[in-house]
This record gives sequence, C-alpha cells and structure tokens, in this order.
Amino acid sequence: MPLMTSWVEAANAPDCDFPLNNLPYGVFDDGSGARMGVAIGDCVLDVARVDHGLDPDLFSAPTWNSVMASGPATWDALRARLMVLLGDPAYGAAVSPHLVAQSDVRLLMPFTVTEYTDFYASKHHATNVGTMFRGPENALPPNWLSIPIGYNGRASSVVVSGTPVHRPWGQVKRPDEALPQFAPSARFDLELELGAIVGGPSSGMVSVAEADEMIFGYVLLNDWSARDIQAWEYQPLGPFQAKATATTISPWIVTRAALEPFRTTSPERDRPLLPYLHEPGPMLYDIELSVGLAPQGASETIICRTNYGQMYYSAAQQLCHHTTSGCSMRTGDLLGSGTISGPDKDSRGSLLEMSWGGKEPVEVAGGQRCFLEDGDTLTLYGAACGDGYRIGFGTCSGTVQPAITLPDWASEATS
Amino acid sequence: MPLMTSWVEAANAPDCDFPLNNLPYGVFDDGSGARMGVAIGDCVLDVARVDHGLDPDLFSAPTWNSVMASGPATWDALRARLMVLLGDPAYGAAVSPHLVAQSDVRLLMPFTVTEYTDFYASKHHATNVGTMFRGPENALPPNWLSIPIGYNGRASSVVVSGTPVHRPWGQVKRPDEALPQFAPSARFDLELELGAIVGGPSSGMVSVAEADEMIFGYVLLNDWSARDIQAWEYQPLGPFQAKATATTISPWIVTRAALEPFRTTSPERDRPLLPYLHEPGPMLYDIELSVGLAPQGASETIICRTNYGQMYYSAAQQLCHHTTSGCSMRTGDLLGSGTISGPDKDSRGSLLEMSWGGKEPVEVAGGQRCFLEDGDTLTLYGAACGDGYRIGFGTCSGTVQPAITLPDWASEATS
Repeated sequence: MPLMTSWVEAANAPDCDFPLNNLPYGVFDDGSGARMGVAIGDCVLDVARVDHGLDPDLFSAPTWNSVMASGPATWDALRARLMVLLGDPAYGAAVSPHLVAQSDVRLLMPFTVTEYTDFYASKHHATNVGTMFRGPENALPPNWLSIPIGYNGRASSVVVSGTPVHRPWGQVKRPDEALPQFAPSARFDLELELGAIVGGPSSGMVSVAEADEMIFGYVLLNDWSARDIQAWEYQPLGPFQAKATATTISPWIVTRAALEPFRTTSPERDRPLLPYLHEPGPMLYDIELSVGLAPQGASETIICRTNYGQMYYSAAQQLCHHTTSGCSMRTGDLLGSGTISGPDKDSRGSLLEMSWGGKEPVEVAGGQRCFLEDGDTLTLYGAACGDGYRIGFGTCSGTVQPAITLPDWASEATS
Repeated sequence: MPLMTSWVEAANAPDCDFPLNNLPYGVFDDGSGARMGVAIGDCVLDVARVDHGLDPDLFSAPTWNSVMASGPATWDALRARLMVLLGDPAYGAAVSPHLVAQSDVRLLMPFTVTEYTDFYASKHHATNVGTMFRGPENALPPNWLSIPIGYNGRASSVVVSGTPVHRPWGQVKRPDEALPQFAPSARFDLELELGAIVGGPSSGMVSVAEADEMIFGYVLLNDWSARDIQAWEYQPLGPFQAKATATTISPWIVTRAALEPFRTTSPERDRPLLPYLHEPGPMLYDIELSVGLAPQGASETIICRTNYGQMYYSAAQQLCHHTTSGCSMRTGDLLGSGTISGPDKDSRGSLLEMSWGGKEPVEVAGGQRCFLEDGDTLTLYGAACGDGYRIGFGTCSGTVQPAITLPDWASEATS
C-alpha cells in the first residue's frame, strides 16, 4: 500500500510518524481540558468537534474506552470517515479549525487501563534471561515452547509517556548478605515491549482469530523493572513489586487497521503448538523498534534496535490463551508482549541482557551503564515502514527520578 | 462488647450472623432492581430509602464503591446513623417498611473490584505446600519470613457467592508424559481465604497503620485453583490461568469497625521483620472459619475448621508492602489473605493440603475427595464470636459445573 495523501501537508512527508495511513488515537490537552484526538502530520484533530458521523456520547469522556466498547463496526466507520475528512481537500475548510499543533498540547493517557497482563514471548529474551539464571542447558523453562507464559501486572501503575518515574524502594538481598535490606533498587531496568489493547470484551474461550478481532490497537510499552527486588521476591509466585513502580505507554493508540499491511508470520515452531494456539494467518507485525538512553545533561545513545516480527507468540495467541480458563476479558485490558529481544547483543530489549546481568557495561554518551541511573531518560521508538511512508508510534519516554525520601516510620531502628 | 439489641427481633438471637453489632453492606435485588443493602437479623435494609443523613449520590449506583471512596469519616457517620435507626425502637415505624426478608432477595456483587491481589500469608499453608513440592528441609522459600509474598490476580474473575463455577480447561502435563495436553483440570481445588477491601486510595508508600485505616472491610474468599494447570504454567512468572477461572466472595462486606473488638496480635516472628512492616498494634482478627463440601445429592461435610488469627502477615502489612514500589492503590482493590491453614490436618484450607497432594483422600458424605468433582458445592463460613453474639460473614458458596464443551477450533487435529 502506498502513502495516502492528506491535505495536512506535514502528513505526507516520508519520515512523518502520522500520515493518513496511520490515524492513531490519543487524548490531548491544549490548556482548555482533556479531549480525544487523532494525530495527523504535526497536528492533532479534535475529533469530537468534526462531523464524525457517530454517536456524540462516544466522545463525551476524554478516553477511547467508549469507542473501543462500541465494537469493530464502529472502529471501521470512524476510521473510514476520518480518511475522508483528512484526505479530501474539500473538507479542509470545515475541519482545519479543529486541528491543534502537536507542539501546543500535552498528551494524556489515551484510554483507561482495566487490567494489565504482561507476557514473556520473545525466545531470545527468555533464552538470555534463562541462560544467566540457570545456565545454557536449562535456559528455556520446559513449558516455554508450549505456553504463552504470562502473569498479571498492576493496571494502576500504567502511566503515559513523559511521566517521571521514581526509583523504587523495596526488599533487596545482596549476594553476600543473609538477610534483605529495605533500600532503593540498585538494578533498575527497562523492558522494551509492545502493548496490545483489548477493545471488545469476551466471556468464555475465544479462538486466536476471534482474539485478533478483539484487539483495538497497539502502543509502545516500557515495563520498568527492579531486578534486585525481583530476584528476592519472585519465588514462588512471580514478579510483584519489582514490576509495580510504573509501566509507561506511548500516547497514541496505533490501530490494528493501520498495521494490517505489515502483518508477518510467526517463526518456525521448535515443536508443534497445541491446536487451540494455531494461527489462521500472520498475526505478528513488522515493526522496527529502538531504545534511546540519554543521561542527564548528555545526548541520547541508541542502545537497542530490534523488531516485533521476531516474537514467538502473537498478541492474538496470548489473548486466546488468557481466556482458556474461563477468564473474562474487558474493554481496556492491556497485554504487554514481553521484552522484545533479537538475536544480537545490540538487539536486546533490557539492560539486564545488554549488560549480561551487570557484567558488561553498555557505552552511552557521557558514560557506561549496567542499569539505570537517576536522571537517565529512556525513550522507546517504533514504526512500521511502508513504501514512502511510516506508521509511527510516536515516543514512549520516561526519566528516572531519585528514590523518594524514606518516611520515618519505615526507617525506625529495629527494636 | 456485649450484644447491641435491635428492634429487628431476629437480630438479637445469639446465633444470628447479623446483629446490630455487625451491619454488613451488600447489594440485593428483590425483583425490582439492584440496590444497596445492610443486613440486620433475617432482613436487608434498603439503605437508600431511609434517612441515612448522607449525600444521596453515594447510593445512586448499586455498589458500595462510592461510599468507600468518600472516606473514613463517612464510613463512621453511616455506621453510627444505622446503629440509631436499627437500634432505637422509635425509628421502627419509619424504617421497617424498607426492610426486605433475606429469603426474598438475590445477593449481588457488593462492590466493583478494581484490581485483585492474592497473598500467601499462612505459614502452615506455605510450609505444607513447600514440603510437598520441595521437601521438609526447603519447605519455606528463603524470602517467606521477610516478605508478605503476593501476586496480582484477575479482577474480572471475581464473582459473588452462588455463581456456578465451570471446571477450567487448560494446559496440563501428566507426570508420565513429555508434552502437555489441552484438557479439563483434573485437580480443581478451593482455597479458603479472607479478602480485605481497600476503601481509601493511596499514592506513594503508606505505613502499616495508614494501610489499616484504608481497609473498608472484609469478605470470605474462595480462590478456586487448578493445581495441574498451575504446576505446568507457574515457572518462572507465577500462577496465571490456574487462578483465573473464578474467585468467589461472600456477598456481605463486614466492616473493619464491626471487627474492632476481635483484633488479635500476629504470632511470634521467626526472625525480626524489617521496620517498615512493624505493626503498631494487633492487626489480625479472631475469626473462626470453616469449609463445607456437599457432593451432588449428598449432605454437607465440614472438611476444615481454622482461624484467621493465626496468619503470619496481616492485611495491613500486605497493603503496606503493596505500596513500597510506588504502586498506587485504589478504591475497590481486593487483597486475598492467602490460604488460611492451621497446624492440624483438619485445619488445612485447601484439598491439596488435606489430601497431601492427592495421596490421602478426604472422607465426605457419599464418598472421598482428593480434588473437587463436578456437582460438588463448596461453602465457606466465617464469624467472629463475641459474648452472646456473632459477627457473621454469611456464606461464600459455589458449585462446580462440568467443563464446557470444547469449541471445534480448539480440538482440531494437529496438522
């Protein structure tokens, strides 16, 4: 599919994240309150104020949940209408008063997260982490090639790009000590992921094909992780406070419709999947991803380049598996893909892997990093690249703030 | 504290779950729609229709979340007012038209669950499970005596007492097979727990004392668990689909205020807790608990009697720990205590423990059980027993239904 041209000129530049082909959904505030918007070129369209052809109630609250809940026919109708309004110059005069420069707005959470689940679907990531912790012979857990491994995360911790992230306190046990301390995490890390947003609800088991139809769109997702807290807490019931500080998402929901031309097949299976996980067609996407790290006062270094297309399990498979037990899924549920790592050292999606557990520092402008330092700004980038255009995700960014001052009650001497 | 008498005569019987001292909150439907109610004796008070003295908007939606969000001063004012309305016979004429017989109503979910976290706070339970899986020398994980171990569960799976529970499908790997099958769970189990409901929200770290003040009340909680699905899926990221079929709660929120006279201290610590987990006073409650199992067409056998007062970590400690990473807590969050097991075989809170991993069947009317069979009805009971009265929780019940018929797409032959 070629570039679809818009009368918003900036949208037609080949390096623009937001051509007419994209039309991602967000929530913005230009100083007059939060409203639902669509990115086009260097602008945001105030969608509630144009002749969108849908029930105005869908746009009465500044969140995309109502549109998501209204179902795929509405999703298609809105996208088709926006294509006309922003593609046909005849609508320029009527629509342009409702465009706001992106540089003049603050972007807010694009939807209300109902529940948040995080998966573990990159074979390279699982192999890297497993090799570090259990040795190369036992790198992949026995279940990994059969199950889209996942765990429930904390929806209240999901924040939008730009939100500062405080280094967490927690229980950490140093290797040379018998007992834990309550201390700020010294191994605070990122995880480069893609987030899939459940639009339509379900009750009961859904197929991979049905699951795919339920997905409204995707965002970039950084699942900030405190490796030292995780190492001490995670047996036997999994990660908990290590993952609850923050999960940052990019502010624009890139729709499944916009990504259609970039579908790609899952890799060869090392052993056959159970029938319920069979895919009816290509369910991954060719999305180029990268991570930039900028220490305080220094320029940004790209520390990772990878691609979502090399995951082992798709979001549709993960969502199908999520429903097997009878678990209901609801509008606004967010599924993290798991850390997206490629086969090479510079395609690893976490510092844990890049620095191989803190033993091989990564070079960045102004220093080296094994884990994150206060003042570091992490930014995820992503785009599906077409013929003369790109479906961009915008940026997913956060700056590490020092740990908060410990309240007196938490530091009293042990009696 | 003695029995407080009510003009609702049934409330004054010593074996009544709902004396004036209790006043638990629920949502009921007598055929004319869902409304907020208070249990008194054998009746439910339609609270929105009496002179409760609060903002009527707090009672406009059939859920207790708005009252919870309004904070402890409102909680105290409502309880005090209800004590007068239901205690002083002068109000009998005005209030009695708004009483409905409990036998004439259906009880619904008393609040909207925002997020659900499950803990692992009984030392007997953790020791039993650890002994079965890792041997007696390594029964307790090294972190257990330091951390209130918890994991995030699935809020969408929480249902009210009386909701049928279908035996889940899932990936299970039999010990004599190399690869998993997709099959109904053959080791479906209960977990006897107490659920703590977060009333007031928080952002940032809260102390144990502050956490206690945030708790609105408690319910009985059965965290249905598929042990075979769990065994195959839980490494390395913890239980996921094994716990997502259903979590049943009792329909009455017993307030923290009603339980005040029954506070009891946590047990001796095997090693000192970190200062942030120190308790300012007694934070557990002396609540007698039991579990009944009734096979289809047979009478009920009590298979477990235990007490919440012997837990190692309180809900206030769990909630405090939950916030250490900076995790925000919100009105309607539900914290499961973890399975409540005592030291004896007949005080174990799960069939996994009672049958010692399926090796020692439990005798029930009409047969034996290692795990649950289709048609079994499980009922949890709980009460704090005072001088001539009891603060009852009502019942928390569910009947196991056969697994659903597998859709064609899930059973196609592997190509």
